[in-house]
Amino acid sequence: MSFNIEDHPHKRYNPLTGDWILVSPHRSKRPWQGQVEKAVVAERPKYDPDCYLCAGNERAGGKFNPDYKGTFVFTNDFSALLTDTPDGGIDDGELFQAQSESGVCKVICFSENHSLTIPEMGVEDIRKVVDVWCEQYNELGSNPNINYVQIFENKGAIMGCSNPHPHGQIWSSKGIPTEPAKECKTQKAYWDKHGRTLLADYVKAELEKEVRLLAQNDSFVAVIPFWAVWPFEAMIISKRPVQNILQLDDEEKTNLADIYKQLTVMYDNLFETSFAYSAGLHQAPCDGVDYSEWHLHMHFYPPLLRSASVKKFMVGYEMLGTPQRDITAEGAAKRLRELPKIHFKNKF
Amino acid sequence: MSFNIEDHPHKRYNPLTGDWILVSPHRSKRPWQGQVEKAVVAERPKYDPDCYLCAGNERAGGKFNPDYKGTFVFTNDFSALLTDTPDGGIDDGELFQAQSESGVCKVICFSENHSLTIPEMGVEDIRKVVDVWCEQYNELGSNPNINYVQIFENKGAIMGCSNPHPHGQIWSSKGIPTEPAKECKTQKAYWDKHGRTLLADYVKAELEKEVRLLAQNDSFVAVIPFWAVWPFEAMIISKRPVQNILQLDDEEKTNLADIYKQLTVMYDNLFETSFAYSAGLHQAPCDGVDYSEWHLHMHFYPPLLRSASVKKFMVGYEMLGTPQRDITAEGAAKRLRELPKIHFKNKF
Ligand SMILES: O=P(O)(O)O[C@H]1O[C@H](CO)[C@@H](O)[C@H](O)[C@H]1O
Ligand SMILES: O=P(O)(O)O[C@H]1O[C@H](CO)[C@@H](O)[C@H](O)[C@H]1O
Repeated sequence: MSFNIEDHPHKRYNPLTGDWILVSPHRSKRPWQGQVEKAVVAERPKYDPDCYLCAGNERAGGKFNPDYKGTFVFTNDFSALLTDTPDGGIDDGELFQAQSESGVCKVICFSENHSLTIPEMGVEDIRKVVDVWCEQYNELGSNPNINYVQIFENKGAIMGCSNPHPHGQIWSSKGIPTEPAKECKTQKAYWDKHGRTLLADYVKAELEKEVRLLAQNDSFVAVIPFWAVWPFEAMIISKRPVQNILQLDDEEKTNLADIYKQLTVMYDNLFETSFAYSAGLHQAPCDGVDYSEWHLHMHFYPPLLRSASVKKFMVGYEMLGTPQRDITAEGAAKRLRELPKIHFKNKF
Repeated sequence: MSFNIEDHPHKRYNPLTGDWILVSPHRSKRPWQGQVEKAVVAERPKYDPDCYLCAGNERAGGKFNPDYKGTFVFTNDFSALLTDTPDGGIDDGELFQAQSESGVCKVICFSENHSLTIPEMGVEDIRKVVDVWCEQYNELGSNPNINYVQIFENKGAIMGCSNPHPHGQIWSSKGIPTEPAKECKTQKAYWDKHGRTLLADYVKAELEKEVRLLAQNDSFVAVIPFWAVWPFEAMIISKRPVQNILQLDDEEKTNLADIYKQLTVMYDNLFETSFAYSAGLHQAPCDGVDYSEWHLHMHFYPPLLRSASVKKFMVGYEMLGTPQRDITAEGAAKRLRELPKIHFKNKF
């Protein structure tokens, strides 16, 4: 018997974080008697008088939203990072180290229509979201006290999203957060060695191999990375090495909207449900340093595993040992790739 | 205004993993409209005919449990790691690296009594669990194909535990898992520099400072680590630097059972509920190498934040940026420390 990656337990290396993950392909066969999630309510109204993100409504902080159409951006009423935090820290030996952190947190409503989600929006409307990302990255990135802009979306109650109105967030900070900081290191080492970005070589290889490819257009690919941890984890990667979204041209911005839609339609179609995830852009820090090694990409971390109601729990061994997955990246990619390309709600 | 760690957003350094975490002390004030967990059913029978861990019952794999009393250990019917996995891997350039992984996964029933949990068990019965850990660490660790033994417990449906019968697991492997591997590096560097274990110095400092201390006995302390990520994350650390549980003497083993109970009683009393967590021992690898730098400890990662039904979601910014907490470690420790020491169910 010789080793076979489709059947045998193995570890895979994530070159972006430098960590290994564990794959147990045979394990999805075990029965599930654990927690089952509530089904997502099928339809929402276009306007909900109790939603603090709908146009014209009052927010938790007491402010009122304008009567917006399309996108709307405001500063988070309960920001985790604040602009007026004084510098300082604690330096009480090497075991007690703390540093002040400051920044700006914003909320981006994707549409005035409360009933929508990204996969149900038109590409031209998602493009407006991409334009807001560009504006915000530009505005926040120009602030000398902000060195990293983290744009992300939490979708679905099981991902801790407290409001179903289509929206995303931006947390921008003086410091470079942990995950992008890891990617700075790994991408720099690769660039110094090869003179090409890590993800340019990765995209090239995935386009040739095809087994983990989900979708592509002229400017972007969507793949299940070789080192995926979450069952249907995916990445959107630009075909052209760019360091941030401001370097995308007009067509590329529309293509980013297009691939965002393509991927999330696949997700919704998998279990014919509104598929929950955390997603976010990783791009170069905006601290003025040259980041030729950085290559724009977007991570998608969706928790569902077996059905619309059974998710993967990253607990126990995953927290104390090594993150572990129960199906292969290749098997997950095949399932997503073979789904209809039209959103299931538009089937008839 | 000068920087104040109790009020201002800041980062803290985790010397065991080498990562930073974000603390936003003011953020717990935000209202919560998100997902609410089901309340834990108050009482379970001592025997459940449908439980595959109860004595005498049939398991998912078709085998029958013996009519055990006290603890009972068996090989997981759906092991993530298997003994007969052939060696091998994939070495397809630096972006596509995989390695075969093998090992043994076991389940440990803590008691024949289906209705119990660790905080409701007597110290002498928890001591029997500690003895099983020792036996298993010894047996598995002597296997030349096993270099790390990860002992852990997932408690509660919200932690992905699929059966409420009191039980834990062991996943032992040829490779050293990601988290212990990080701790190998950091503890070695500290040892080489100071000639003392990192956690010996840490325990000494926490015993002096007292602000994050939860409980102690002659052999162990329980603390909320300075760098805790989960709201009520805790560590149990041996006062004497030992590398693994086999080095504990008889009294120390009983004291480990005692502190395990003390901490979990605090947890249950916090929200007067059966408090969910993932917990596990971190100890030296068993690959025959000298690990003088290793210091036995146990991590507790509980998800609840505000109440018995509102947990902290590690999503969005936490996945893409930096893990973030909404209350300080010191505030969390104070709340736990001030709780009654007797389990709430025994109050009357
Ligand atoms: O083995 P169990 O309890 O069925 O499963 C649980 O613990 C495992 C080990 O931590 C995890 O991999 C699973 O995701 C979780 O649901
Ligand atoms: O900001 P929200 O949506 O209220 O909160 C959610 O996203 C945040 C940022 O990822 C997390 O820190 C919270 O735990 C989560 O519940």
